[in-house]
Amino acid sequence: MRPPPSTPPARTPSPRPSRAPTASGSSLFSRRTTPPGLSRLSTSASPSGGVVFSGRQSPGGHNVVWGLHDALKVYNPQSILYGFIGGTEGLFANKTLEITNDVLASYKNQGGFDLLGRSIDQIRSSKQVSAAMTTCQDLNLDGLVIVGGVTSNSDAAQLAETLVQKNCKTKVVGVPVSLNGDLKNQFVETTVGFDTVCKVNSQLISNVCLDAISAGKYYYFVRLMGRKASHVALECALQSHPNMLIMGEEVALSKLTLMEVINKICDGVQARAELGKHHGVLLIPEGLIESIPEMYALIQEISILHNNNVPVTEIPTQLSPWAAALFQFLPPFIRRELLLHQESDNSAQLSQIDTEQLLAHLVEAEMIKRTKEGRYKGKKFSSVCHFFGYQARGSLPSNFDCDYAYVLGHISLHMIAAGLTGYMATVANLKDPVHKWRCAAAPLTAMMSVRRHLRGPGAIPIGKPAIHPSPIDLKGKAYELLREKASSFLLDDFYRTPGGIQFEGPGSDAKPITLTIEDQDYMGDIEMLKLYLDK
Amino acid sequence: MRPPPSTPPARTPSPRPSRAPTASGSSLFSRRTTPPGLSRLSTSASPSGGVVFSGRQSPGGHNVVWGLHDALKVYNPQSILYGFIGGTEGLFANKTLEITNDVLASYKNQGGFDLLGRSIDQIRSSKQVSAAMTTCQDLNLDGLVIVGGVTSNSDAAQLAETLVQKNCKTKVVGVPVSLNGDLKNQFVETTVGFDTVCKVNSQLISNVCLDAISAGKYYYFVRLMGRKASHVALECALQSHPNMLIMGEEVALSKLTLMEVINKICDGVQARAELGKHHGVLLIPEGLIESIPEMYALIQEISILHNNNVPVTEIPTQLSPWAAALFQFLPPFIRRELLLHQESDNSAQLSQIDTEQLLAHLVEAEMIKRTKEGRYKGKKFSSVCHFFGYQARGSLPSNFDCDYAYVLGHISLHMIAAGLTGYMATVANLKDPVHKWRCAAAPLTAMMSVRRHLRGPGAIPIGKPAIHPSPIDLKGKAYELLREKASSFLLDDFYRTPGGIQFEGPGSDAKPITLTIEDQDYMGDIEMLKLYLDK
Repeated sequence: MRPPPSTPPARTPSPRPSRAPTASGSSLFSRRTTPPGLSRLSTSASPSGGVVFSGRQSPGGHNVVWGLHDALKVYNPQSILYGFIGGTEGLFANKTLEITNDVLASYKNQGGFDLLGRSIDQIRSSKQVSAAMTTCQDLNLDGLVIVGGVTSNSDAAQLAETLVQKNCKTKVVGVPVSLNGDLKNQFVETTVGFDTVCKVNSQLISNVCLDAISAGKYYYFVRLMGRKASHVALECALQSHPNMLIMGEEVALSKLTLMEVINKICDGVQARAELGKHHGVLLIPEGLIESIPEMYALIQEISILHNNNVPVTEIPTQLSPWAAALFQFLPPFIRRELLLHQESDNSAQLSQIDTEQLLAHLVEAEMIKRTKEGRYKGKKFSSVCHFFGYQARGSLPSNFDCDYAYVLGHISLHMIAAGLTGYMATVANLKDPVHKWRCAAAPLTAMMSVRRHLRGPGAIPIGKPAIHPSPIDLKGKAYELLREKASSFLLDDFYRTPGGIQFEGPGSDAKPITLTIEDQDYMGDIEMLKLYLDK
Repeated sequence: MRPPPSTPPARTPSPRPSRAPTASGSSLFSRRTTPPGLSRLSTSASPSGGVVFSGRQSPGGHNVVWGLHDALKVYNPQSILYGFIGGTEGLFANKTLEITNDVLASYKNQGGFDLLGRSIDQIRSSKQVSAAMTTCQDLNLDGLVIVGGVTSNSDAAQLAETLVQKNCKTKVVGVPVSLNGDLKNQFVETTVGFDTVCKVNSQLISNVCLDAISAGKYYYFVRLMGRKASHVALECALQSHPNMLIMGEEVALSKLTLMEVINKICDGVQARAELGKHHGVLLIPEGLIESIPEMYALIQEISILHNNNVPVTEIPTQLSPWAAALFQFLPPFIRRELLLHQESDNSAQLSQIDTEQLLAHLVEAEMIKRTKEGRYKGKKFSSVCHFFGYQARGSLPSNFDCDYAYVLGHISLHMIAAGLTGYMATVANLKDPVHKWRCAAAPLTAMMSVRRHLRGPGAIPIGKPAIHPSPIDLKGKAYELLREKASSFLLDDFYRTPGGIQFEGPGSDAKPITLTIEDQDYMGDIEMLKLYLDK
């Protein structure tokens, strides 16, 4: 067990004792993954590495740096670890901070990315790539660790490729850190930060559930951060048992229109009213808006006009008749939000679109209509809207995220030492206790694919491979569990209260339900395969 | 120490083990407060009591019922405790649930008011009072415990008075439960729920602080629930160290106009920009809007028109020229919110007024103006707005709130048994460990006063005494501490991370800073006085 955080863990100014990770590295690595090629590392006097926060801030990110630092110092006490100040912009401009134990002291097991900061999550344009390469050469880096999600790791693969082509010795390693949980594939079971963000959000959702049932008069419409995929929303639903979850992947699969989604919600409200219940809680993933076909078409048209540099004020006049009609139907606040500038991956700024208010607005209108037509006889429908996003992202990381991030940092060094470039640090068997975790490195290219028709705007032109956000697996066990419980969640107020993140005592080592419920064991499968092959 | 909550403490359907309160009642009471008049309690075969949730849901409320139930059963195992279903409306309609150990099992140490629910927090009109009396008589209640804040306890005093006049034997006891922390006087050091709500909010504020400093480009404007007074905001500021707190009491004292408040914020933004900082976090108590003189005048005019039953659509046309001019200056969303219907105490619905958006809107306009005039040379000002209210109110209660509420429930029974009516259950020395707490009963009338000019709308007509929300004491130690730190908070990003509420381990028994910093000891002072008098 780890020593507890200082009480209360003040952020500044003096260094605080930190929870040391359970996996102190060496024992874990000496068993399984001591890389064969340690001798390959730079023969220069002091081998050096760099680390950059490229993606959005996610709880646990600091521990990647900590793990990397510890592993590097064990490898060679003379070696230097540079952190790039201000994220990718610091990388391009060669603005560094040397990472030392003193520098780390206040950031171990702490949330945020503020040790180094972050800026745009892009190393993509040829100018950006060449600036990054210049920095790697100027600092004579043996390795560069890029911390981030799908976008950052796609860029990491491209950078690795370029550096090899240009004979730059720097090895590029990606680390899967993203609150969205959408960097998920056979190698990557979950991302750093996902557990914490789901725990904080689940706590808040259970709080509004109890608020709703206490007063008995409101419907809470809660939108959750998580980009295109609904991983955060699914995990939170399994943690807190709200009444409804409108999952983007389901809507996309069934090709539900906006009014079909509204009617589905209204039917739920009506079924509850028949049981005398005039309160409830709905979860809405921020990606839902893009999963509704006609909204998707509209967003895509706006995106194309954006890319053609059409001024924002003129976009509405240049829409197709269909899209223009839908645009005019939407309330003004949504219209304004849809026209906002795009994300760094050219997709819509989902966090800025108040989908929960749009749905609440339309549900209220529909319930009034049903009342007038005599189809609904319950009390007046009232809603309260929430967006849970920024307030979870900066949380103190859970024990799980602390451990996972620290281990990934450790693995990264061993990958660089082994001469791997264009790989991602991964850990398999995460659902088991730390001593059963299996560390590995997976080639980024194995996670990449070329798609012509990516859902939503920002479709990447054909020919350019990328890691794509992985949607919820509608044949997976987590979704199956949700379907089983859906009707009970809707009608029985089976609310569950996970409470605040605990650092000690029962529950402190709980992991995401969506992680533990799956029987993923890629490394085990590989071993089985090997055994068969050997036979 | 208490046993831990089940892991995770699921809300339904099976009863869960609960954290038992540290103060198991009897030891505490046998020492200090065994009331002299136990024999006065009803001689009927089975003495009975009733309990009603009158105020807003606040974490810990369930433990009042638990403490009351345990004390009643110790007193007489045959006695019955009725809970009123649906709050005051259940009281008026005599809708009851008999409180038993089985009923309590799932609600011990849990948040929400959902064991019984709540409706309007009013027992005020003669119709309401007489309905309550009829229920007391029909159930032959020896005592009625009213759980709530300033409004509920004012009503409790009035009900007690009426019952005595009408020779109804039911004793009325108030219990101070309110997240706002504004029921505070020489008898009442804090209210149940305040600690929990401040902890949850502080966690979220520290999360956005880390988010702000990580990205380095946003100002977060965070509005906090807490009605007229700024207690929640002050406690959260001392817990999380955000950059600014715009306290209602300060603004009212200095009679700052809206534009003076805006300029104060802009000066802060500018001072930070000169240090290269383009991010920050501001706390805004929801009562701030009423503390700004011209807004107060406007809200009061609207309130008078409301009371005269002027239709909402006509209110804008009937305002005085000054008020009308201000009203037209405000953005449309604020205008709409100002016209909403009023709270049960006739004040404005502060939780529905997006003061944080108003301020962010005006600060942005002012920063653009300053940029054009060449007075501001920093990066473009960007803001993200949040309202932290409902998502804290339903939280699992902190250990402190669990203990405090349980003890208050216990005291209530002893007060009824002692024949006290129109009293509030109180505990002094809360900053000390539980075994040093001093239980007492304080007359509600001693907390009431008659005011002609209550700040804000909803001024109670002269002649009617009430308990008034107590503002922040601008000569108190907590405010002094904040003033000392204000400049460091503004410029140094001295962010502090209290984290999620802990139930075990270090920090789990932390109490509100604003409580522990004051040297309040009313009971001790009384004893000192007695000693002097004896001499």
